[in-house]
Amino acid sequence: MVLAYDGTDFCGWQVQPDAPSIQGTLASAIGRITSEKVLPQGSGRTDAGVHAFAQVASFATESPIPAENLLKALNDILPPAIRILEATEAHPDFHARKSALGKTYRYRIYRGTICPPFLARYVWHYPYPLDEDAMRRAASYFLGDHDFTSFAAVDPERGRETEDSNVRSISKSECTKVGHEFVYDVRGDGFLHHMVRNIVGTLILVGKGALPAEDVSRILRERNRSAAGATVPPNGLYLVSVEY
Amino acid sequence: MVLAYDGTDFCGWQVQPDAPSIQGTLASAIGRITSEKVLPQGSGRTDAGVHAFAQVASFATESPIPAENLLKALNDILPPAIRILEATEAHPDFHARKSALGKTYRYRIYRGTICPPFLARYVWHYPYPLDEDAMRRAASYFLGDHDFTSFAAVDPERGRETEDSNVRSISKSECTKVGHEFVYDVRGDGFLHHMVRNIVGTLILVGKGALPAEDVSRILRERNRSAAGATVPPNGLYLVSVEY
Repeated sequence: MVLAYDGTDFCGWQVQPDAPSIQGTLASAIGRITSEKVLPQGSGRTDAGVHAFAQVASFATESPIPAENLLKALNDILPPAIRILEATEAHPDFHARKSALGKTYRYRIYRGTICPPFLARYVWHYPYPLDEDAMRRAASYFLGDHDFTSFAAVDPERGRETEDSNVRSISKSECTKVGHEFVYDVRGDGFLHHMVRNIVGTLILVGKGALPAEDVSRILRERNRSAAGATVPPNGLYLVSVEY
Repeated sequence: MVLAYDGTDFCGWQVQPDAPSIQGTLASAIGRITSEKVLPQGSGRTDAGVHAFAQVASFATESPIPAENLLKALNDILPPAIRILEATEAHPDFHARKSALGKTYRYRIYRGTICPPFLARYVWHYPYPLDEDAMRRAASYFLGDHDFTSFAAVDPERGRETEDSNVRSISKSECTKVGHEFVYDVRGDGFLHHMVRNIVGTLILVGKGALPAEDVSRILRERNRSAAGATVPPNGLYLVSVEY
């Protein structure tokens, strides 16, 4: 399944006992339709408040309901904040997380003085001065293969999605300006926990003039979380797509 | 003050004892800044779930705080769902409701099969077939001066905003299609309670083929609420501007 969600009112992707999660909400909707107890596996977890344009999730079912009907039935009972965009039968070996070859994320920063209420859930409002050209230069230093330890949450239980190493390969790392929005797009073969939000926090340091753009290389080499910038808020972050 | 709000999580404009209202939230924010107990007067009430691009509200204050500083201070403490866009000192005779000469509303209908979660709060999702050309024709019958009793909520306490009559003058009544959105824009010298939502409900009847477009004239003449269509949901409705 390909699904979009507004993460604002959820505790994140992963099911939790006492909080509304995307995974748990999906699981109970699937359960209501198929009468099966299944836990759909996502391509990766998204944190509380993080959105998805196209998360991918897979699950095994013995239900004879055709995928197209399952999509309609799920969208009928899911809250409007979660929408199934596509549902197709996959090869039994397919696993949304293990089969993923790469992901694209977007981070949206609203630069205008007053953030329209209709965008408040969907962007990070940062109206203070930023050297956006310096941020664009800094973004390019993330391209290629790097050890991203400096940009990973210090969190022994998480952050190692694809392999037992913090090396990730980044094939896109780009800033664009669209109206009042400063948008950061990043594509890689995998991402550590908080990695995109810590990259953006570091771009902000560069934008404020607290760090020269070329220092990104040094911070990557240091392999030390405290060398990089702060973790920016979740509400500007979107999982844009998952590549297989 | 000119203000925008996302009405989703509010019980409407008007202050209520046990529910979060726009007016009440504004009043307490102004109170925190000026230490005065004031109730800002809006150009009109908006119902629960209805949004505003540019509501206008006025209040009297003895505070020496310049309007521009008041704007910043209010936006600092108001929830992100309410934003003050402009604040200016007005003539003592100015009253946001009594001085209003007209208003413009917009109603947004999302026509795609699946409504993106990021739009769910801001549009009415209606994916079923509609004859949009017939709706365009029907919309034009509202232009001019009419008694809108058929389109007013049956609600003796409300709906008479500007005078003791249900005659209103409509100077714009127009449907446009923008991507997946069917948008209805209406401008008039005043609106009765639920009037825009009842007009849209009637346009939907026309779109479904349940009513010929020219029947709008007959429904207006009947001055009977049950002759018109149902009240459509609040979340597609926006107060766009107030004219003075």
